[in-house]
Amino acid sequence: MSQIPDFSKGDGLLPAIAQDAASGEVLMLAYMNREAWEQTLSTGTAVYYSRSRGQLWKKGEESGHIQNVRAIYVDCDADTILLKVDQLGGAACHEGYPTCFFRRWNGTNYSVEVARVFDPAQVYDPAHDKPQ
Amino acid sequence: MSQIPDFSKGDGLLPAIAQDAASGEVLMLAYMNREAWEQTLSTGTAVYYSRSRGQLWKKGEESGHIQNVRAIYVDCDADTILLKVDQLGGAACHEGYPTCFFRRWNGTNYSVEVARVFDPAQVYDPAHDKPQ
Repeated sequence: MSQIPDFSKGDGLLPAIAQDAASGEVLMLAYMNREAWEQTLSTGTAVYYSRSRGQLWKKGEESGHIQNVRAIYVDCDADTILLKVDQLGGAACHEGYPTCFFRRWNGTNYSVEVARVFDPAQVYDPAHDKPQ
Repeated sequence: MSQIPDFSKGDGLLPAIAQDAASGEVLMLAYMNREAWEQTLSTGTAVYYSRSRGQLWKKGEESGHIQNVRAIYVDCDADTILLKVDQLGGAACHEGYPTCFFRRWNGTNYSVEVARVFDPAQVYDPAHDKPQ
């Protein structure tokens, strides 16, 4: 059988969903290459591959909002990863929201139903690109 | 502001996560192009784009395991979609499991902790490619 996850798919980058281990809330989607996957396994904290920066990205390395991994699942096609995590700081999103999925379609437009946990300007160096 | 979702990203194909609206379980990840997105909005049931078949894929068109969409979210970067759905038939996975994420990493290997809801051989035409 092919390797699981199968990094021969997706040009070596597979989507990884982070879900809050306690609440079940879907927090974000990022990407992993094999090195990010192996570092996630070995460190027990989520490490992704930043497509915009072209390098490994330890989630929370700048904000402190680390994700401690509680469980890891791989899907039927071996090309998507699901992490159940404890999200430190209570916010997964670089815009300061608990989840990156803070915009809900209301039929004609989008509504934001959740409050920010932090002000991004207070957390990130303005000279720095967005973390993802 | 760019369109939301922004189909200029990802070569026009964006990942879409389906989450059970009642239990919060993450069921699957598939992809949408603009047409799949628009059909999902207009029909209220999940329509994806099958990368393997190169065509629109109304989830459940063969198995009957349709996803009725209860809520739609788009992430901060406008390049990932989250659907909260009612999964008809109790199984999202073409292998017969409630969720496609039925394989859990146990530290050295994978364990399957959930039972099949259906036998794929009884649901899909064997001449047919897998639905995703």
